[in-house]
Amino acid sequence: MPSMPSDLEISRATLRKPLSDVAGDMGIEPRLFEPYGHSAGKISLEAIEELATRPRAKYVVVTSITPTPLGEGKTTTTVGLGQAFGHIGKRGVIAVRQASMGPTFGIKGGAAGGGYSQVVPMEAVNLHLTGDIHAVTSAHNLLAAMVDNHLHKGNALDIDPLAVSWRRVLDVNDRDLRQIVTGLGGRQDGLPRQTGFDITAASEVMAALALAPSLSDLRARLGRIVVAYDRRGEPVTAEDLRGAGAMCVQLRDALKPNLLQTTEQTPALVHCGPFGNIAHGNSSVVADLIGIHGGDYLVTEAGFGADMGAERFFNIKCRASGLTPDAAVVVATVRGLKAHTGRYRVVAGRSLPEEMLAENPEDVRDGATNLRKQIANVRAHGVTPVVAVNAFPGDYDSEKQAIVDVAAEEGARAAITTHATEGGKGAAELAEAVAEACAEPAGFSFLYPDDASLTEKIETIARRMYGADGIELSATARRQLDDCERHGFGHLPVCVAKTHLSLSADPSRKGAPVGWTLPVREVRLSAGAGFVYPICGDMRTMPGLSSQPAAENIDIDEAGQVVGLS
Amino acid sequence: MPSMPSDLEISRATLRKPLSDVAGDMGIEPRLFEPYGHSAGKISLEAIEELATRPRAKYVVVTSITPTPLGEGKTTTTVGLGQAFGHIGKRGVIAVRQASMGPTFGIKGGAAGGGYSQVVPMEAVNLHLTGDIHAVTSAHNLLAAMVDNHLHKGNALDIDPLAVSWRRVLDVNDRDLRQIVTGLGGRQDGLPRQTGFDITAASEVMAALALAPSLSDLRARLGRIVVAYDRRGEPVTAEDLRGAGAMCVQLRDALKPNLLQTTEQTPALVHCGPFGNIAHGNSSVVADLIGIHGGDYLVTEAGFGADMGAERFFNIKCRASGLTPDAAVVVATVRGLKAHTGRYRVVAGRSLPEEMLAENPEDVRDGATNLRKQIANVRAHGVTPVVAVNAFPGDYDSEKQAIVDVAAEEGARAAITTHATEGGKGAAELAEAVAEACAEPAGFSFLYPDDASLTEKIETIARRMYGADGIELSATARRQLDDCERHGFGHLPVCVAKTHLSLSADPSRKGAPVGWTLPVREVRLSAGAGFVYPICGDMRTMPGLSSQPAAENIDIDEAGQVVGLS
Repeated sequence: MPSMPSDLEISRATLRKPLSDVAGDMGIEPRLFEPYGHSAGKISLEAIEELATRPRAKYVVVTSITPTPLGEGKTTTTVGLGQAFGHIGKRGVIAVRQASMGPTFGIKGGAAGGGYSQVVPMEAVNLHLTGDIHAVTSAHNLLAAMVDNHLHKGNALDIDPLAVSWRRVLDVNDRDLRQIVTGLGGRQDGLPRQTGFDITAASEVMAALALAPSLSDLRARLGRIVVAYDRRGEPVTAEDLRGAGAMCVQLRDALKPNLLQTTEQTPALVHCGPFGNIAHGNSSVVADLIGIHGGDYLVTEAGFGADMGAERFFNIKCRASGLTPDAAVVVATVRGLKAHTGRYRVVAGRSLPEEMLAENPEDVRDGATNLRKQIANVRAHGVTPVVAVNAFPGDYDSEKQAIVDVAAEEGARAAITTHATEGGKGAAELAEAVAEACAEPAGFSFLYPDDASLTEKIETIARRMYGADGIELSATARRQLDDCERHGFGHLPVCVAKTHLSLSADPSRKGAPVGWTLPVREVRLSAGAGFVYPICGDMRTMPGLSSQPAAENIDIDEAGQVVGLS
Repeated sequence: MPSMPSDLEISRATLRKPLSDVAGDMGIEPRLFEPYGHSAGKISLEAIEELATRPRAKYVVVTSITPTPLGEGKTTTTVGLGQAFGHIGKRGVIAVRQASMGPTFGIKGGAAGGGYSQVVPMEAVNLHLTGDIHAVTSAHNLLAAMVDNHLHKGNALDIDPLAVSWRRVLDVNDRDLRQIVTGLGGRQDGLPRQTGFDITAASEVMAALALAPSLSDLRARLGRIVVAYDRRGEPVTAEDLRGAGAMCVQLRDALKPNLLQTTEQTPALVHCGPFGNIAHGNSSVVADLIGIHGGDYLVTEAGFGADMGAERFFNIKCRASGLTPDAAVVVATVRGLKAHTGRYRVVAGRSLPEEMLAENPEDVRDGATNLRKQIANVRAHGVTPVVAVNAFPGDYDSEKQAIVDVAAEEGARAAITTHATEGGKGAAELAEAVAEACAEPAGFSFLYPDDASLTEKIETIARRMYGADGIELSATARRQLDDCERHGFGHLPVCVAKTHLSLSADPSRKGAPVGWTLPVREVRLSAGAGFVYPICGDMRTMPGLSSQPAAENIDIDEAGQVVGLS
């Protein structure tokens, strides 16, 4: 097999269409499209209303088996499927999250799909893009400064300095900022307090931005953000601090979705990147509200496996957008399912264990317990699943077929795809299967009603999505749940913060674990974003750099071109 | 007098030209101009070479008397003068600094000129613009994370953890970040260390960005940044940490100057905003390298008074750009010179003392010692000064005339301007005077040669610019100067960090103090930016918020428009 060019080389060699033409393909008039440099642009939110009379696209969410350190290629499949519709005479539009620069310069070097199924130019996607993440950093930290300034200037709201939950954020992998003491130096330099920084993707502001269907809704969400509790134990909000208006001003342009294109000139909405662990991990509601009238199929990506990203897509994002999905693609790989047997030690960045490379369809079937469960998780929402077998060079036909067989046993459509090496035509069969699935009568329903208690909501997700026998609340969690209900947040959906590496709360348990209970250590509130998140395990919200950060290899060459970003 | 609309109202009511046409007015072809939204765009650095064959504009720097809390209207005069050239049949281009969001949301609410002499739209200038400041934040903090990561991962470079000088930055007014301890939490969370955050404008990366004439030069400057010293006392650089390449990639677009326009559609280059206290406080070299071929007159602004901003313009910025100025405008106001008598207690944001509003040309003459000295400071560089009397409503004719008389006594041209209320035609007389000054034979020279010692350079500036009797080096400063010379930085220019509120080092001394000595407490190195900065007084590098931050009044209205930003 001839060796493939790098993602960066492919991206650079791609012929791009003028973005105003790409917008035009979606029915967006030039006056609603603002270019941001030659590589990206923003779509005015007026497009939501103006496109409303156009036909509604079928709405397809791309999810996956429980992720392994190998990567299942979910973004690549989202891009590939979007492109594939063009190969079966339909118009696809994709919606994906914006990459965070922290990891880009920390570990991996880039996240825009891959090969001949990527969003281009990959430098734009992986660098600042149009500055939305920076705007979130800025708005978040303005509020943090206003909290500390309030404490410093007399504390009229009677905030308990030990009950300030609002931290600061930066889009960088910087472990030294996780736990810090601020306000040292003396009377003029603030009030000493222990606090810390999270990565910007983990900011509640990012989650609010991703869930707001309009600017006025965003303004209201920002106002509802709870930053602290006063000495009587009552929540203090960004509105109380008079910070929400200024934050909204800083986020006004960031709320407009970014338009780029794929390697095959398919429209690509790249917008927002809320953290998958403590937030809902889905791209923005406004992007989908525009994309849903921009073609025949809108393909949107949800983070992590179907138990997490897709569950939140169904129960958090669809609640906010009012949109309902027509089908869900569950991405599976031969190597991923082999890893789900629990027989191999797989470490990101290291080469695969020798014995994992041998032809072994039985292994694939054994690990497929995970796939079966994720198919069921999609069905639990009344949505038709389609399995995408994302083929990698070196996979044996028997192994790929084993996945197709498992899907058939579960009554699900399946297709083997080769979009990374072949572009959209490598996912044409998947597109046909998805089109069939979308043609079935729709029966979407939420997993739980708004008026269930928070505890019931957590228990429902634990039992029906994760396969747990039940939940175990710590005393702290119990008290915090009571507080949330008492403060009027009981109607919110829940976003369970657990490891994404297992259906269970233990990252080492592969496949589809049974006979376990979900431990809820504590419960936190994202009143602005609009969910409550129970913490079930160690949730790291600020990554660190490795011994050899990706940044060390990223540079410009003599012609001023970026190198090392792939 | 009818009341004037607010800056924001004027900005919003301004008819704007398509920015590609504004670029065209400067001789910049469409392919070298990239729009960033409807309000701003970036100019490709290729324009420097492509415009080189066009005639060179006259190069005019706008400086002022020693600033008072009242504000002398230097940016407004820069804009007004640029516009005024259009009223005398010439083509003006202006170059100004980008406003920092920290102060915008902290104290003042906006900085883009004022009235009918402002850069529009003022929301763009005062908010994220094209994200350059955020890119500086990002690149700066990536390097900080790499420093701490290096310490965490074995410290192969043998960095002395107590000799790390690289702090972190954010574009927010946040006093609680001035002094912090990072790396708490345990073994996985870094090495505890006392450090802090500066405002992004104070980042050495910002200064380097502003001084680099090309991308490859920026790459080299970033590599030269000294972040720490090793245990033998030798400097450790960003290059040693392999961080400079990734930083440069993050700054690649930020190096391209932003193009906007003024209220009268004059081209306005808005680029970079290095802090005036510890850095050189001038807009970018690349903007001026493009603007110098974009019209008949390039009007560029220097921060603070002529002893500081203009001195650094002459000796730091012109060294980096290779450009030489043809004239310097010294902005003076009636109220500013009255304040320089030292007879009035003037506080920013409070109304003026009653007795200061009475007609009193003698007061103006008494305070004009400061103006006389600043005129001499310009002349010391072989540049022809022109005094701009920036008239405010309520100034008496006799008072304005007093300034014109003082200028005449010093042999300098002068003109009374009303550009804030009348736009460019209110500065037409100033433009005529500047044109005459530019027609005089040029005699620009640096204040000191490269090969003078650092101590000689400081002493020359202290004596010749500030009017000091000499300098007094602390033992620390002496040792640090020796270190700088020994490490090969003796050839760099110096950027004296002293108060901008007095020609002396004591902010309470007005006029033109004599009989004093400049105390040099310590000396720091900005090897990447390319200067050494002696510290002569308390230099605050992270502002705080006031009791009523400007942010509290900034919001969006029901139509999604920004309010309160003026």
